[in-house]
Amino acid sequence: MKNIDDSAITRDGKSLIVAHDHGLEHGPEDFEPNPESADPEHVFEVAQHEAVTALALQKGLAEHYREFGGDTPLLVKLNGNSNLWSPEDHMSYLNCSVKYAVEELNADAVGFTFYAGSDNEERMAQDFRRIQEEARKYDVSVVMWAYPRGHGIESSEKYEGDTDPEVIAYAARLGLEMGADMVKCKYPGLEGWKDVEEVTSRMKTVMSGGSKASDEKFLSDVAGMIEAGGNGLAVGRNVFQREDPESILDSLEKVIYEEKTVEESL
Amino acid sequence: MKNIDDSAITRDGKSLIVAHDHGLEHGPEDFEPNPESADPEHVFEVAQHEAVTALALQKGLAEHYREFGGDTPLLVKLNGNSNLWSPEDHMSYLNCSVKYAVEELNADAVGFTFYAGSDNEERMAQDFRRIQEEARKYDVSVVMWAYPRGHGIESSEKYEGDTDPEVIAYAARLGLEMGADMVKCKYPGLEGWKDVEEVTSRMKTVMSGGSKASDEKFLSDVAGMIEAGGNGLAVGRNVFQREDPESILDSLEKVIYEEKTVEESL
Amino acid sequence: MKNIDDSAITRDGKSLIVAHDHGLEHGPEDFEPNPESADPEHVFEVAQHEAVTALALQKGLAEHYREFGGDTPLLVKLNGNSNLWSPEDHMSYLNCSVKYAVEELNADAVGFTFYAGSDNEERMAQDFRRIQEEARKYDVSVVMWAYPRGHGIESSEKYEGDTDPEVIAYAARLGLEMGADMVKCKYPGLEGWKDVEEVTSRMKTVMSGGSKASDEKFLSDVAGMIEAGGNGLAVGRNVFQREDPESILDSLEKVIYEEKTVEESL
Amino acid sequence: MKNIDDSAITRDGKSLIVAHDHGLEHGPEDFEPNPESADPEHVFEVAQHEAVTALALQKGLAEHYREFGGDTPLLVKLNGNSNLWSPEDHMSYLNCSVKYAVEELNADAVGFTFYAGSDNEERMAQDFRRIQEEARKYDVSVVMWAYPRGHGIESSEKYEGDTDPEVIAYAARLGLEMGADMVKCKYPGLEGWKDVEEVTSRMKTVMSGGSKASDEKFLSDVAGMIEAGGNGLAVGRNVFQREDPESILDSLEKVIYEEKTVEESL
Amino acid sequence: MKNIDDSAITRDGKSLIVAHDHGLEHGPEDFEPNPESADPEHVFEVAQHEAVTALALQKGLAEHYREFGGDTPLLVKLNGNSNLWSPEDHMSYLNCSVKYAVEELNADAVGFTFYAGSDNEERMAQDFRRIQEEARKYDVSVVMWAYPRGHGIESSEKYEGDTDPEVIAYAARLGLEMGADMVKCKYPGLEGWKDVEEVTSRMKTVMSGGSKASDEKFLSDVAGMIEAGGNGLAVGRNVFQREDPESILDSLEKVIYEEKTVEESL
Repeated sequence: MKNIDDSAITRDGKSLIVAHDHGLEHGPEDFEPNPESADPEHVFEVAQHEAVTALALQKGLAEHYREFGGDTPLLVKLNGNSNLWSPEDHMSYLNCSVKYAVEELNADAVGFTFYAGSDNEERMAQDFRRIQEEARKYDVSVVMWAYPRGHGIESSEKYEGDTDPEVIAYAARLGLEMGADMVKCKYPGLEGWKDVEEVTSRMKTVMSGGSKASDEKFLSDVAGMIEAGGNGLAVGRNVFQREDPESILDSLEKVIYEEKTVEESL
Repeated sequence: MKNIDDSAITRDGKSLIVAHDHGLEHGPEDFEPNPESADPEHVFEVAQHEAVTALALQKGLAEHYREFGGDTPLLVKLNGNSNLWSPEDHMSYLNCSVKYAVEELNADAVGFTFYAGSDNEERMAQDFRRIQEEARKYDVSVVMWAYPRGHGIESSEKYEGDTDPEVIAYAARLGLEMGADMVKCKYPGLEGWKDVEEVTSRMKTVMSGGSKASDEKFLSDVAGMIEAGGNGLAVGRNVFQREDPESILDSLEKVIYEEKTVEESL
Repeated sequence: MKNIDDSAITRDGKSLIVAHDHGLEHGPEDFEPNPESADPEHVFEVAQHEAVTALALQKGLAEHYREFGGDTPLLVKLNGNSNLWSPEDHMSYLNCSVKYAVEELNADAVGFTFYAGSDNEERMAQDFRRIQEEARKYDVSVVMWAYPRGHGIESSEKYEGDTDPEVIAYAARLGLEMGADMVKCKYPGLEGWKDVEEVTSRMKTVMSGGSKASDEKFLSDVAGMIEAGGNGLAVGRNVFQREDPESILDSLEKVIYEEKTVEESL
Repeated sequence: MKNIDDSAITRDGKSLIVAHDHGLEHGPEDFEPNPESADPEHVFEVAQHEAVTALALQKGLAEHYREFGGDTPLLVKLNGNSNLWSPEDHMSYLNCSVKYAVEELNADAVGFTFYAGSDNEERMAQDFRRIQEEARKYDVSVVMWAYPRGHGIESSEKYEGDTDPEVIAYAARLGLEMGADMVKCKYPGLEGWKDVEEVTSRMKTVMSGGSKASDEKFLSDVAGMIEAGGNGLAVGRNVFQREDPESILDSLEKVIYEEKTVEESL
Repeated sequence: MKNIDDSAITRDGKSLIVAHDHGLEHGPEDFEPNPESADPEHVFEVAQHEAVTALALQKGLAEHYREFGGDTPLLVKLNGNSNLWSPEDHMSYLNCSVKYAVEELNADAVGFTFYAGSDNEERMAQDFRRIQEEARKYDVSVVMWAYPRGHGIESSEKYEGDTDPEVIAYAARLGLEMGADMVKCKYPGLEGWKDVEEVTSRMKTVMSGGSKASDEKFLSDVAGMIEAGGNGLAVGRNVFQREDPESILDSLEKVIYEEKTVEESL
């Protein structure tokens, strides 16, 4: 098993993942703030920013547009679900095999959404088990979108919903126990992130989302997360819905890899 | 992976698909306007019109009547469902494997109905994933009947049913994200089609159906769709329920490939 | 793929199938009119009548008693269900694989019940898809018991139950579309049978059942069906529940193969 | 396919099977009348009685204690279910593969419970189909515990519960149709057993249970069954719950193989 | 099949298993009494105590931290479930294959939770059957967490819940019948343990949990269990939630292997 530190999707042990799966997950409405973002060529172009360690996207985009991707490592997302669908509880279904991602799409890593707490937790865990073991055969890293959600959490008296820091830390720990190389967690605030770090030991962690109040607040969250031991960021709409994605990527590069202050980075 | 532009089912990047799957989908009543259309020999004969880039049909017809097919490329439909059946929500089930379609039936392309939004979305997505990856092995194109439908859409406050242009565009985008080479969409009007084009980038798109008011209105829709960037048409009953299918195919040829006006084409 | 006209189960393009699956489908009560019929040796003996082109039966009988079968071709039925069972809707489950039927039981053809319209239509269609494709590998013919039935039909305002001739014709057409070589349909009367013929083109069709009023009426139905283009008969209890099965088989031979009148055949 | 008459589990066409699966099916309470019977070593010892043609038991006992088994042929039971479980309707689930039973456990035959009439009939039939065909590959006999039971029978107006002789005969016939070599049926009285014989032709039949009123009544049932054409007995608790199992086995030997009267056998 | 007495996870026929799966099963809250226990490096270090015959843990920990494990044999747990999940009834789902556990993680044994009595009993039994047979191929021991639980037990008038000693003994017996090499049972008191021993014959048994009242009471339970024929202990939180795990492991070593009295062991 290759250490993720030797993998293409990290740089000095850190990672800045540009994710473009909202076309599948949310549909055309997510392209509206910046219609250009509907075009995979644009997406591949943006992802060539030198700060980016991986472009995360679905099979179809990887397949038809990789020629526009330069050397950006690909993190092929293996499951997902449309927002047209309304399942009984949260479910992300497989739409690409590891074999296909690696052999045909040249993936450097694979991504998988795990909704712990959903009534479908078991089914996603079964998919995860298989893709995790197959990814090892191909020596590609496994990134878990560790998104606790659903009936088990809503109905529990113990937890305060899926933004409860303990729930987020638990879901991150599941990634470690189940064999992920990296987990992607919603940012639960600085204290919450410290809890995540405490239970994930040396596994890589990247935050997803973060404050949208302002660039300053956003970068400040990222800086705090890095300081608390986090390994980086996975960012999607916050980049693609801007007309000038390069500028925010420049700033993120400084905060994540150079550990500069927010002021220095803006 | 062969580019669909090099595939037998396109001509100058465009496509006119004659589809004859209503015997399975709707039953004998669809043959009533023109009883001759019940006979697969007639179907294969009609499809030999030089404008036709593919004849879409089910396994059984392809198997027993291909000798009548001349050189018309075959687009074998891999799933479907009878109208005698009344499932809880829309579902199109597999009735042919890719291997069989290609090795035994000489398919040039395979077709698959995906009812995004149905409670069965996941199950069709699982089938699609497998057939898409297997089709790549055989280097045949994959055409998705991108038909949003069912409970997820009906119950959503966000969408206005399955003819909502945003829903149609979303379903078309799913085809791109999931790895189709071409999507077949219900025609949502000219503005709606432009939305489809905007989110499907360079993937092939063909319209299905269109106005039945008159030939002039129908051809006018097709001409508009072509001008908006669409790649052609998949037509079934609108051809087979006529006594003179050749005449409308002549007109379509002019509109689609020669980009003539409706007046010149009639 | 071998043409069914070259198969052992037809003679001059026609077929007289003796079916003995009521031990599984209905149980011992069906043996009561003629207890001897419970004995598979008797069954195999009856089926040696020269008019018979195939003996249809389940795996166990084929396996343990084939030594009594002479040269009668075997049509091994691949699915079925007991009458002790009370599923939510009609379902015929697999109880023999194609491989076993051909390699171990020396089947010349395989039979499959498809209850189109049942809530289980999809599941039977999945089984049918697999057995149809595997049967091609072994070059044995596929006979579909095309029996529309169940919730989808009962709940439809369009159809008048499973004896509605349009429903029977639709189910027969499904056999053609899905790749059967022959369909076995309940006899819907002469006009109804003509509809069946119109939508099944060159596929083989055999009627099942028919009037039990008298031999004369029964043979008259068969004669009409043959004249309307049908290819023969599958008969079970109507033969085995008689003490003298040979006599009715003699008559059927004349009606089916020699196209004699009922009077000449009795 | 080896004839069951040539198999180790019959002697002169008859069989006395000692079954010890109550540890799984009923739990420790069944050992209470004779605690020694909890010990598999004791079980294997008892089964060495020369009248015994097979010891029926689950995988775990066969695996860990076979060294105590002498030459007694093993009939490995392939499915079962605990009494702690409370499924919606009767179900016996697989807990050993044929391959494992034969290759690792040296089974001479395999056993399978089929609850015809249960809502789970289909699922057990699917398991049976596979194990029956695999058993043929290994040339081991297949014994079906033909136990009609469940919702389909309870809800039927036609049958009077699962002890109705017609139901028992129907279930036995299913064994014949589905390819078993031997069925094990609850004893429905002498007349009922004759019905079983009538519909099972040359397939082997063994009774299970029988009267517990007294040894005399029990042996008298067995003698009647043998006279009616039955092939023997499968007995479990009625042997193991005794302190002196040898004595009853001696008597059974006389009744079954030597066709002695009950008086001569006691 | 290797005898478990020759396996790395026993010593003189006994076993002291340190189990660390609470990160998956219960989440971060279980680390709170001793935050250090969240760190797998600490876990591997503790497990190097010479009394320990196996460290039981999930795939992810085994994979990423084995370098800290010294020579401690690994017992890889193959199933589990998060506490965020709220299934209809108890279920432990697979998250590692036997092949992966052995070939990639160097497991000396595999562990499997079986909730007999749950509505999901059948599904876990299916998983167990497969992993048991595959474990034999690799010659690694199979340890069953024999935890009766769920609807079947709660709804039974016969049993008094999942702590009823008869229920615990029944579940232990299932391990024997189904082919486990060792069962891990909740301690039902000394009399209850004797019942467990009576029905498990020569299979290995280890107790889990036991009194938390005091070390003396805990060791006394262990001593009694050993005397009653038990083979050892599997202990998790009772070790890791202490700041000085070594001391209690020292005492356990004396009680289990040297059969010293509690007084001598403290």
